[in-house]
Amino acid sequence: MRIARIAHPDGVAFVTVEGDEGAEVAAEVAEHPFGKPTFTGRRWPLADTRLLAPILPSKVVCVGKNYADHAKEMGGQAPANPVIFLKPSTTVIGPGAAIKLPADSSRVDFEGELAVVIGMPCRDVPAARAKDVVLGYTIANDVTARDQQHADGQWTRAKGHDTFCPLGPWISTGVDADDLRLRTSVDGELKQDSRTSLLLHDIPTVIEWVSRVMTLLPGDVILTGTPAGVGPITAGQQVSVSIEGLGTLTNPVANR
Amino acid sequence: MRIARIAHPDGVAFVTVEGDEGAEVAAEVAEHPFGKPTFTGRRWPLADTRLLAPILPSKVVCVGKNYADHAKEMGGQAPANPVIFLKPSTTVIGPGAAIKLPADSSRVDFEGELAVVIGMPCRDVPAARAKDVVLGYTIANDVTARDQQHADGQWTRAKGHDTFCPLGPWISTGVDADDLRLRTSVDGELKQDSRTSLLLHDIPTVIEWVSRVMTLLPGDVILTGTPAGVGPITAGQQVSVSIEGLGTLTNPVANR
Repeated sequence: MRIARIAHPDGVAFVTVEGDEGAEVAAEVAEHPFGKPTFTGRRWPLADTRLLAPILPSKVVCVGKNYADHAKEMGGQAPANPVIFLKPSTTVIGPGAAIKLPADSSRVDFEGELAVVIGMPCRDVPAARAKDVVLGYTIANDVTARDQQHADGQWTRAKGHDTFCPLGPWISTGVDADDLRLRTSVDGELKQDSRTSLLLHDIPTVIEWVSRVMTLLPGDVILTGTPAGVGPITAGQQVSVSIEGLGTLTNPVANR
Repeated sequence: MRIARIAHPDGVAFVTVEGDEGAEVAAEVAEHPFGKPTFTGRRWPLADTRLLAPILPSKVVCVGKNYADHAKEMGGQAPANPVIFLKPSTTVIGPGAAIKLPADSSRVDFEGELAVVIGMPCRDVPAARAKDVVLGYTIANDVTARDQQHADGQWTRAKGHDTFCPLGPWISTGVDADDLRLRTSVDGELKQDSRTSLLLHDIPTVIEWVSRVMTLLPGDVILTGTPAGVGPITAGQQVSVSIEGLGTLTNPVANR
């Protein structure tokens, strides 16, 4: 099942997306998409609606340096344990919304990532049961002001600017995300090409690690890390992150 | 005005707290405490209620090393610009609720701090107008697993454990917080004793800096940093942070 959030002619709704590419229909979900969804009966051709970020998370937890080749390109060692940081919820935007470059950064990078969407309140989740708390998977771009990341030491400012967390296009449920191809391109030029099987700390390990620290709530999102190939984006470009089976998340880039 | 959130016999409410110490009355606010509050007419003796965290913030933004003497005791230089980090909203607890020590940390410290509560959606707030976006001030304890802070580099895990952000006892509005005495004690023994006038980056500067990065929402909280004197807390102790004019925030400490 693909769960999306859309703007339709009468408002905003959670929907499931049915049908094949180019002919998708959005079926409105009553209330929220956690648990077994019930439907209102309202339906729209997806092309007549606008996709929003598929969820508004109470928190976005990210894992740093979780692919060996990216840790290497950043000039550091891959850490023995997952290193986590947070993006504020105000960073979240949907597909097609512009990534806005802050005036006080001279180098903003894309980082294509697999995102895990949590389906229920949980903490102290053992890795062996971690998949039980997952609603589904979506695509994220962990946009980063690289100069600010290096200047500050702490990554919050660099990764916390408004619009720096594109999410979407939808949440895919019932998917095995352990070995999916992930590609990022800028204006059609391939920049990142890896597989989620190369995550140093796999999805269950990350959920166990994060939920040992903090309670996770329905809709919370975990960004699992980016592979090698990160690079700058500039105003006027388009950046697309594609993950096999999950779709493509495309965002234009603009100055603020 | 003092704005609190309480559990009363019939549920949970925002209230204003009226009257003198020991004889306070809680007057229920209709809807939310932003803007000019209106009242439902329901009132309870404060002693018959339980104070909760005065606000549930969408984000808690913190400033690191914002007192020179604390930067020095941490063995670092005070940074030229504010260094910011986030605590997840799941860290927030109210007065009297227990700080729970994680099993995987051997050193958890208190950090008494002045907290700014934001009153309206805002971004790019110039320092000269920063006070306009402030609802009021409260007291925070930026509880920190010091060993994890040193081990990780990023501070998110160390500062992100459930219960690691006591807030309260209430939000004081109409207060000038530029030069208030701040004291922290553990089991009655004074550990921190400083003044908010010693903030390296003052409140307007911090609001300008943070709001240049991220949109702030009503109820968001900014922790302004801790002075020297931080130290460990252990199960069975009580930690109190007092700020002149704002009250005292006391929390017991327990093992998870």
